[in-house]
Amino acid sequence: MSAYLDLCTLARERALLSTTSAVLGWDQETGLPPAAVPYRAAQLAYLSGQIHQLSTSDPWRKALEAAEAETPDSPTTSANLREFRHHFDRATCLPRDLVEQTAKTSSLAKAAWGEARSKSDFSLFAPHLETLLDLARRKADLWGYEEEPYDALLENYERGARTSDVVRIFDSFQEDLTTLSREAVTRSASTPPDLLHGYYPIIAQQTLNAEIAESIGFDLRAGRIDTVAHPFCTHLGPRDTRLTTRYHLTDFTSSLFGVLHEAGHGMYDQGLPESEHGLPSGNAVSLGIHESQSRLWENHVGRSRPFWERWYPRAVDLFPNLQKVSLHDFLRTINRATYSPIRVEADEATYDLHILLRFDLERRMLRGELAVKDIPAAWNEAFEALFGFLPPDDAHGCLQDIHWSMGGLGYFSTYTLGNLNAAQLFHTAQQDLRIAASFAKADVAPLLKWMQDNIHAAGSTLFPQDLMRQATGEPTNPQYHLAHLRQRFLTNDPQ
Amino acid sequence: MSAYLDLCTLARERALLSTTSAVLGWDQETGLPPAAVPYRAAQLAYLSGQIHQLSTSDPWRKALEAAEAETPDSPTTSANLREFRHHFDRATCLPRDLVEQTAKTSSLAKAAWGEARSKSDFSLFAPHLETLLDLARRKADLWGYEEEPYDALLENYERGARTSDVVRIFDSFQEDLTTLSREAVTRSASTPPDLLHGYYPIIAQQTLNAEIAESIGFDLRAGRIDTVAHPFCTHLGPRDTRLTTRYHLTDFTSSLFGVLHEAGHGMYDQGLPESEHGLPSGNAVSLGIHESQSRLWENHVGRSRPFWERWYPRAVDLFPNLQKVSLHDFLRTINRATYSPIRVEADEATYDLHILLRFDLERRMLRGELAVKDIPAAWNEAFEALFGFLPPDDAHGCLQDIHWSMGGLGYFSTYTLGNLNAAQLFHTAQQDLRIAASFAKADVAPLLKWMQDNIHAAGSTLFPQDLMRQATGEPTNPQYHLAHLRQRFLTNDPQ
Repeated sequence: MSAYLDLCTLARERALLSTTSAVLGWDQETGLPPAAVPYRAAQLAYLSGQIHQLSTSDPWRKALEAAEAETPDSPTTSANLREFRHHFDRATCLPRDLVEQTAKTSSLAKAAWGEARSKSDFSLFAPHLETLLDLARRKADLWGYEEEPYDALLENYERGARTSDVVRIFDSFQEDLTTLSREAVTRSASTPPDLLHGYYPIIAQQTLNAEIAESIGFDLRAGRIDTVAHPFCTHLGPRDTRLTTRYHLTDFTSSLFGVLHEAGHGMYDQGLPESEHGLPSGNAVSLGIHESQSRLWENHVGRSRPFWERWYPRAVDLFPNLQKVSLHDFLRTINRATYSPIRVEADEATYDLHILLRFDLERRMLRGELAVKDIPAAWNEAFEALFGFLPPDDAHGCLQDIHWSMGGLGYFSTYTLGNLNAAQLFHTAQQDLRIAASFAKADVAPLLKWMQDNIHAAGSTLFPQDLMRQATGEPTNPQYHLAHLRQRFLTNDPQ
Repeated sequence: MSAYLDLCTLARERALLSTTSAVLGWDQETGLPPAAVPYRAAQLAYLSGQIHQLSTSDPWRKALEAAEAETPDSPTTSANLREFRHHFDRATCLPRDLVEQTAKTSSLAKAAWGEARSKSDFSLFAPHLETLLDLARRKADLWGYEEEPYDALLENYERGARTSDVVRIFDSFQEDLTTLSREAVTRSASTPPDLLHGYYPIIAQQTLNAEIAESIGFDLRAGRIDTVAHPFCTHLGPRDTRLTTRYHLTDFTSSLFGVLHEAGHGMYDQGLPESEHGLPSGNAVSLGIHESQSRLWENHVGRSRPFWERWYPRAVDLFPNLQKVSLHDFLRTINRATYSPIRVEADEATYDLHILLRFDLERRMLRGELAVKDIPAAWNEAFEALFGFLPPDDAHGCLQDIHWSMGGLGYFSTYTLGNLNAAQLFHTAQQDLRIAASFAKADVAPLLKWMQDNIHAAGSTLFPQDLMRQATGEPTNPQYHLAHLRQRFLTNDPQ
């Protein structure tokens, strides 16, 4: 297996470059001086180029070919070779200028998007999106696809997935979801929206967030929590996983659920086998699985009654304003369904409607059926059909998300896959009576252990749908998510 | 000039790597999760290796040789070629094992030094210092020197400088300084040390620091100010210069003078010609010039009467505690001279004594006249001769500084060169009546403009002493510093 070991050495060298690039990306989001954006773009483009060069180099190709000629010594080796080959073929068919142009454009586009959103002026972002869409189509053509360009991009995020599978899954629950969300919104109307309104000092929010993040299992010695405008989680190498959130002085739940969500991502990263760092077996498998972990901790754990039976007294302790709110009313408030124009503010019951809209628009953009200039109108039309009202402006419509500015076309569908996977994994884990009993007492360590054993430890050795099959007995099935939403929003006993 | 342009392209590529490495270093100091230290070391070692490889590569050598064969199109080109050649020869004459051993030893030595200092036990650090000294001597031998090994190391920090020049400069003011500092300490004894003692909220300190930094000309759109244990300034590329400071709740001047000092460094970095970034003509020229800028803004500007006539009302506004302290008493307090065993706590009047001590010891160590085991005794003997008392222990004596543990032999003398240069540059600039008149009203924009035109814009095109000659009409002359100290500490009209 000496060629395989050579290949692993090259892969670990690539990981040094990609984690370095991730540090630069984290820094850009958390506090890069505004005037430094162009040079940061140059640094990131250079590193992307170096990564691409290494991943497509002669030594890499030779090591890969030689390793493939050896007899694999384990299923992990076979899986790694499968993934190495896949990524090598994908990387070698892209010319270097395309890779560098993508990095550079998206760094500039991110800044332009920020300005466009703040001014609600789509025209400031449109030319960048044109370029990014063109680059995405060129990539899709080079990578190839059987049915539609979206396939080629989806494969980046969800190995082995086909657009048609996603369409089938989404179609099978869109109608139920639309009905369910409408009922949830109607039922929630009797819960006043401003029950929690008060003053929540940021330092107290940070205290609660850190205590909760640590208690559910996020290792703060191997991570940190920072403040940004658009929260995310990033993994900068072994034992360096960084969460971000944003604070509202009048509502502590916004930063807290942000932290729970990102900690879900972070605990997946912290649960990846460190000895496999830099190899597929040490990498997260897909966005749909990643998002299952964030949603599980944010929603299935973080919005549940047992969780708050434990944590509500602490919250009341930190925020005297809550003394006037009963636990029952608190739970009703954090599980209140309303229609919002903003995806990231959407509740569980309505969230996936936002995804269905974006999934449809992106497929049309990529197929050339929707021009960039027509996006605002198409967005508003689709939004009105799903939600029954129009977004107030483009800042609250087609400009609300950062993803396109980062070249992340094909990405959104994985959020809903994540929601569906979360419900299915939570349901399966809860079949273990010991896990369920602990969970009822808000002891989530056994639940995390189950995720570590059944999801995190696998790295990318299985395709996401095979991992779901192995962990739960079946591929992604939307019925668990629907059952969860019904239980939470349409019964008198929201769990 | 096509070979020269090729060389510049390689140099700009190296700058992308070195600024990336600087981002990782900044991140390590400002908030790396503790468990991530080993992986960060691996990332930094990898980048160092890449930088070294590129700087000593065949393409680099060929471009350099071909560029040298061309006719330079400008003095800047000639200067850049001179510097490129110097650094290439220095980098290529070190065998790889020496470079690796230095990195390895200094990483171990830093940890050992930390432990030795905390236990005040020199024997824990001594074997590491033996090795570092041996490595430094081997490097000096490989780099070559005319008079003594210190020359070869000094050249790393102060291009074109000779130890004998430094000796001549230091010798010419040591006696005056010793006398002057003793008188200053005696006169200051009547100023109570705790006049400013009070409660200074960090947020108010940050407000004042940012207002002052911006008002003296540090561009916060192209920089930021963070909090660390050991303050520094780092330049992460064009328009990205980061200052750090530390806060004491009972004394706002500590963080403020830290910011003024680092902002002096930062404004030099921000004043380097951006079009020359990555080339010698776009790099800071030496530590002695860099330190002249930090000392100028910290001491000549930041501790002056005109400066505080403008800023003291604002400080009183932010810190009600100061209402009971007159401007006169405030100025006496921030310009109070005392003997401290610790260099970084020393005031202007006594600081350079700490450097004279280290300079002499280092030269004797490098010439083999002072054995490592004898350093504590030699330190204490020299300290007593200069200060009139013994350090309480080695932690407050020969173990106080991190520099040797990082292999930074030859570094200390540049601090005093910086102090001398600061006084000389300030004196020269003030000869311009418009600058002096503005300064008297605490308008420092013309002073900064003078530094930009006469110091920053030159990058590394001139040797530091030639730059001093061009800017002030003479090489470093300690009389300006002595005159400044006399005016500040020994008259009844401290400016």
